[in-house]
Amino acid sequence: MQHIKYFENCISEFSKLPGIGRKTAMRLALHILKMKPESAKRLALSVVELKEKIKFCVECGSISEDDMCGVCLSNSRDRSVLCVVEEAKDVLVIEQTAHFHGLYHVLGGKISPLDGIAPSDLSFSSLIRRIKEHNVEELIIATNPDADGETTAIYIIRLLADITGLKITKLASGIPIGSLIEYADDFTMMRALENRNIFKG
Amino acid sequence: MQHIKYFENCISEFSKLPGIGRKTAMRLALHILKMKPESAKRLALSVVELKEKIKFCVECGSISEDDMCGVCLSNSRDRSVLCVVEEAKDVLVIEQTAHFHGLYHVLGGKISPLDGIAPSDLSFSSLIRRIKEHNVEELIIATNPDADGETTAIYIIRLLADITGLKITKLASGIPIGSLIEYADDFTMMRALENRNIFKG
Repeated sequence: MQHIKYFENCISEFSKLPGIGRKTAMRLALHILKMKPESAKRLALSVVELKEKIKFCVECGSISEDDMCGVCLSNSRDRSVLCVVEEAKDVLVIEQTAHFHGLYHVLGGKISPLDGIAPSDLSFSSLIRRIKEHNVEELIIATNPDADGETTAIYIIRLLADITGLKITKLASGIPIGSLIEYADDFTMMRALENRNIFKG
Repeated sequence: MQHIKYFENCISEFSKLPGIGRKTAMRLALHILKMKPESAKRLALSVVELKEKIKFCVECGSISEDDMCGVCLSNSRDRSVLCVVEEAKDVLVIEQTAHFHGLYHVLGGKISPLDGIAPSDLSFSSLIRRIKEHNVEELIIATNPDADGETTAIYIIRLLADITGLKITKLASGIPIGSLIEYADDFTMMRALENRNIFKG
């Protein structure tokens, strides 16, 4: 059975994707084998076309079909507010709410000494350039609330401390809507208490 | 952001695969965007080649590069023992142990009234034909130990009850090696007790 080259090859290619181990890759390969030939071709073509047609916006770093993305090109966005995120996928999540009308800045990751990612690997220099060139009034930090994300947030706050007239804010942490208090971990609960909203007095 | 057609297209194709939801598909698409172009092409090609080059063995139903698989063609396998499994992936798991030297028979699923899978949808007729034609002496049932798998096992035992000289066995159920007794569920524990091995007396 070990000589089924093309089967092994497909498993090995899928195993290289994040979060997909050998067992999952095997399940996917067997599913593809049972798919209609047109469906398998569509899947393969979608990968090729994705790579050929999609690029990263030269201005903000989020995904785009052109050199500059729709958000950066739009006339209806508030150019005085910049939201800094780790990855392009975070832009998609925020855009889906339709509640943010400013521009984005994708860092391309977070500072992580363990993974060997230093500030120089991320797009901090273009962040400073964009803030200064476009007279940004508010920078919203939307890094993830994990150890590396918090480190990155603190780094950004220190990096931009000297820019006068720039307000720096950060996404609220707390109990997720729809969740239960009994499931909240200690740190989330602490943060929810610290950042409690005042309704009276 | 909703107009990034090729990105959405790739997410939609990946979402069709089992166990991959929209969020995972988006993570995969973004990973592919960051991959080297050659790597993305290799992934796409592996899907196309898998579909073109791999088929299901006409005899046992497991995956193969030719009409008949390496196990069915081999001269060193014990043709008097047949192991019946639900899916081709189960053959791969058993082959990896290198502890089974008989042949396989892939049913192509399990009887599942809820999913609308009747005995006629599975390869029972060719199972009976193979047992009779090749004078099989032992049939090892290796269906999964869940409700539908057990139903299928009982169906097989009844179906083949009349074939004289055929021994029918079934994989042992019990505590998985490396696991702890405290984590065993009631049914597994019951089965482990019922099927206990006798060492003395």
